[in-house]
Amino acid sequence: MDDCDEADFVVRQREPFNAEPLPSRLIEQYLTPQSLLYVRSHGAIPHLGGNHAIRFGGDGLRDAALTLAELKAGFPHRSIVAAMQCAGNRRADLQAVGKTNGDPWDVGAIGNVEWTGVSLGDVLRDLGIGDRRKGYIVCKAADVDEVEGEAHAYEISITLRRVMEGDVLISWAIGGEPLSPAHGAPMRLVVPGYAGVRSAKWLTSIELRDEPSAAPIQAKDYKLFPPDEVGRDVDWSKGLVIEAMPVNSAICVPRNGDTVDAGALTVIGYALAYGRRVARVDVSIDGGRYWAGARFIDVGAAPDAWQRWQYDVDVAPGRYEMVVRAVDDAGQSQPERARDVWNFAGYLSTAWHRIKVEVR
Amino acid sequence: MDDCDEADFVVRQREPFNAEPLPSRLIEQYLTPQSLLYVRSHGAIPHLGGNHAIRFGGDGLRDAALTLAELKAGFPHRSIVAAMQCAGNRRADLQAVGKTNGDPWDVGAIGNVEWTGVSLGDVLRDLGIGDRRKGYIVCKAADVDEVEGEAHAYEISITLRRVMEGDVLISWAIGGEPLSPAHGAPMRLVVPGYAGVRSAKWLTSIELRDEPSAAPIQAKDYKLFPPDEVGRDVDWSKGLVIEAMPVNSAICVPRNGDTVDAGALTVIGYALAYGRRVARVDVSIDGGRYWAGARFIDVGAAPDAWQRWQYDVDVAPGRYEMVVRAVDDAGQSQPERARDVWNFAGYLSTAWHRIKVEVR
Repeated sequence: MDDCDEADFVVRQREPFNAEPLPSRLIEQYLTPQSLLYVRSHGAIPHLGGNHAIRFGGDGLRDAALTLAELKAGFPHRSIVAAMQCAGNRRADLQAVGKTNGDPWDVGAIGNVEWTGVSLGDVLRDLGIGDRRKGYIVCKAADVDEVEGEAHAYEISITLRRVMEGDVLISWAIGGEPLSPAHGAPMRLVVPGYAGVRSAKWLTSIELRDEPSAAPIQAKDYKLFPPDEVGRDVDWSKGLVIEAMPVNSAICVPRNGDTVDAGALTVIGYALAYGRRVARVDVSIDGGRYWAGARFIDVGAAPDAWQRWQYDVDVAPGRYEMVVRAVDDAGQSQPERARDVWNFAGYLSTAWHRIKVEVR
Repeated sequence: MDDCDEADFVVRQREPFNAEPLPSRLIEQYLTPQSLLYVRSHGAIPHLGGNHAIRFGGDGLRDAALTLAELKAGFPHRSIVAAMQCAGNRRADLQAVGKTNGDPWDVGAIGNVEWTGVSLGDVLRDLGIGDRRKGYIVCKAADVDEVEGEAHAYEISITLRRVMEGDVLISWAIGGEPLSPAHGAPMRLVVPGYAGVRSAKWLTSIELRDEPSAAPIQAKDYKLFPPDEVGRDVDWSKGLVIEAMPVNSAICVPRNGDTVDAGALTVIGYALAYGRRVARVDVSIDGGRYWAGARFIDVGAAPDAWQRWQYDVDVAPGRYEMVVRAVDDAGQSQPERARDVWNFAGYLSTAWHRIKVEVR
């Protein structure tokens, strides 16, 4: 992969290419650079030329085809900081209690990104959306994916109401740097506060419709199913379309299985709460019996951003189970056990994050 | 108490009067009538006359004193359905794992109410609020309460931003019936989607200020503290002011300890998700090993309303532990165990609700 330095990554799959950064590198910065952002591909990575245009149309919208240069010239530029997290982040913890679909992501299928682009709402206004708020924006992409053994163009939908809140972007840059092919060059959608799957890369068309997309990525995959649905003869309508996600947190330093020296230890990680504020992060070094509060590293983090936290503790030689959980400003926290949130597709793995550390 | 038929209530405290309805009565209707709404008083119930006026003022607002008749005549009437839940609802489950402050509420310190009144935002606009959105609305009430051994007038604050969303009401009626003295006659605040404590009863003044109220109800009580704060020499600044609450659910029928006949059994309860939609309710009759989906009784419930659910099952003779948990549309669910959310003040008791039932 030419997009990331593989020394900083754990590759989960070669084809399609899926990789997450080492947590210790990921957590170094508040803003994740493109070179440290996880890559989640559903098919081969498309390489679109500089003259690639996104087609717009459907349901009374004026038809248009706009290149990156035309979007940049025609609409105000916006920069938004928003965490992007794969719905399957931390799936390895679910797989530890039961088989699921999907790659065994550790804690790195997330990044906290400064996106630059234009508001999709501004573009739709220019194309005649007027006061309409009912319906869906269906976004098609250039990649071809396999779901349940069949190949389909990648296609997702989000409600027009969400788009018209203004912060949904057609983005061309991460941290001021043009999107690399792996991250959707030349233009991708960014839906702040939604699971990564909705932020379609390599956009080819954006259409207004009365109904959501029936493509498998939208209608079957990336849904949360109840525990009595085990993945055979699935009633796909029973799943919840994953958009916002539950409060989550993880320890990035030290790593599970590390051996560290006795004395001062700094535990570092992230937390995020999807449209709510992270009110508190609790850390335990004894498996969850005694908890203490972590301090926030990032003061004044943006609403859809992550919040890095730090906990300083003196440790004597021995074996420790370190645990983290976050609490949002509605008092909502994470479930204790992965088995309580197991689902056959392996999404929304948000149980308390636990690691084992030996102190010598 | 002249406000409720005590045959339908469990009285938790006489002075001040605190009582919750029998869950089997509470769950009969989507809209809770005033006669079945829990009563939470912090002091003696004030009896204010028909000419009682609320004083408005502070920070550049035009001073005014408005009676119920003047509010009714001067502003558009609004009706809003919103659940009102005490931050201490289900506290008995927390007290089962550790001592806390407060009354041992079962599952009845909640009601789903149709409120009628005027928008406080409309009143503030009339008094010259203009475009201002920074600051706090401080609401004083006629009751006097004791917090930490000291008597204070009841006083809470909410952000001006929240008020100007429009659905915060000065309300005079529940289900079309004038407020009884126990529920705040003649006029109370209603803050949809916030814990009951913010919906101050017996309003006497509403003031715009730069800072939140420093009164103990706002600044000390009704805060969520971390588990390492055990209630001695409390650092009050460490608590999270409780406004929105976590997703919650409870079984209302049958009751804990009931004996029922073998055969068809209907389990009924409520769920609510504070600004999010209740996406799913899971029920288990074997203590949480196998879960099945409940069906919703109320289709199209309002955003801040509860959602009643029902689960029909055939049961053979034996002992059962029945459990419920709700999942919101961000995939957020409830914690498994009460000990994981214990806090010394006994708030936000939202672990899976469990009851024991014998089938004969």
